[in-house]
Amino acid sequence: MQHGKFITLEGGEGVGKSTNLRFITDWMRSRDIEFIQTREPGGTPLAEQLRTLLLEKREESVDPTAELLMVFAARAQHLAEVIRPALARGAWVICDRFTDATYAYQGGGRSLDLSLIAQLEETVQGELRPDRILLLDLDPETGLARAATTGAADRFESEKLDFFHKVRNAYLARAAAAPARYAVVDAARPLNEVQQQLAAELESLL
Amino acid sequence: MQHGKFITLEGGEGVGKSTNLRFITDWMRSRDIEFIQTREPGGTPLAEQLRTLLLEKREESVDPTAELLMVFAARAQHLAEVIRPALARGAWVICDRFTDATYAYQGGGRSLDLSLIAQLEETVQGELRPDRILLLDLDPETGLARAATTGAADRFESEKLDFFHKVRNAYLARAAAAPARYAVVDAARPLNEVQQQLAAELESLL
Repeated sequence: MQHGKFITLEGGEGVGKSTNLRFITDWMRSRDIEFIQTREPGGTPLAEQLRTLLLEKREESVDPTAELLMVFAARAQHLAEVIRPALARGAWVICDRFTDATYAYQGGGRSLDLSLIAQLEETVQGELRPDRILLLDLDPETGLARAATTGAADRFESEKLDFFHKVRNAYLARAAAAPARYAVVDAARPLNEVQQQLAAELESLL
Repeated sequence: MQHGKFITLEGGEGVGKSTNLRFITDWMRSRDIEFIQTREPGGTPLAEQLRTLLLEKREESVDPTAELLMVFAARAQHLAEVIRPALARGAWVICDRFTDATYAYQGGGRSLDLSLIAQLEETVQGELRPDRILLLDLDPETGLARAATTGAADRFESEKLDFFHKVRNAYLARAAAAPARYAVVDAARPLNEVQQQLAAELESLL
């Protein structure tokens, strides 16, 4: 069975995901590649409702395991309804955050057991992994200063600087452990250099 | 540390849970027992929002694993915010459905792997199990006929008869495997006999 490529775009706050997502989808259109653009948590009506519950600030404190299970519930739904059908018909999938974000935010940021995350990844994804993970890397001070200019902070964006250092370190540790699958992109460089690197990564998938 | 008793009331549709919950809480008040009454999925603002997402009928089909993870996400939140604190201060907890319902509805009804449910139970509950599970048992034909008189059917209540036979069988299999923990109550008998048995079960916990 012919499969489309599964590409995820990852990174912390203010690394430039939106701008670079537009670049990536423009690149795919210019190559006449059939693709879908989606995001996590989210991507189906139910998964988007779970996203809302995850992001909204609330008075009760959210149990970290509850948060993790909500993330994987949304992912199971997204995979079943959107991602697997698209890949199966040969479309490429570009997804704004995926399981690496879970390792980074819930594993790194919230200090949840990585083996529990791996167990849920296996349960929900089976063998499915992204073909390429594009990780936009930036020091959190710079990223948060950029992100602060774009609207009210959600429950994650309201975390303290230390949280985002842990998120970044967890992302980089994932990339270091499996360098063939990751492209670490220095998001502090000028945008045209970032996008040259992204284009080269995409070309390599053709 | 002194712990309150943790009692769950289980059963399929139309078995008389609401009526018997009132009987149980009246019994506790008559014994001056400090208790909380709660329910699953639900019991905290976030868990109740998850309940709404679980129960509402929707156009997209819901992936069974996504459903299972939402149930356990709500449970993790409920345990952290409500059940564990109550038990720790010595209060009794009477909960309208708990993990046996997951084995019955998601394991029996949806045919999900029981070992996956057991793994999530361990992750979310650790060692915590109900002290007594009061299972109201009734054949589904009778139960559904009773339930049909009480408002519009939710996503579970809209399942077919075969689903509810699987739910009942899964409940009974759980009780048969650990009879010391379960009280199976024949909900087809007259209400006063049902409640005599419930009262005897509650007395035995004192």
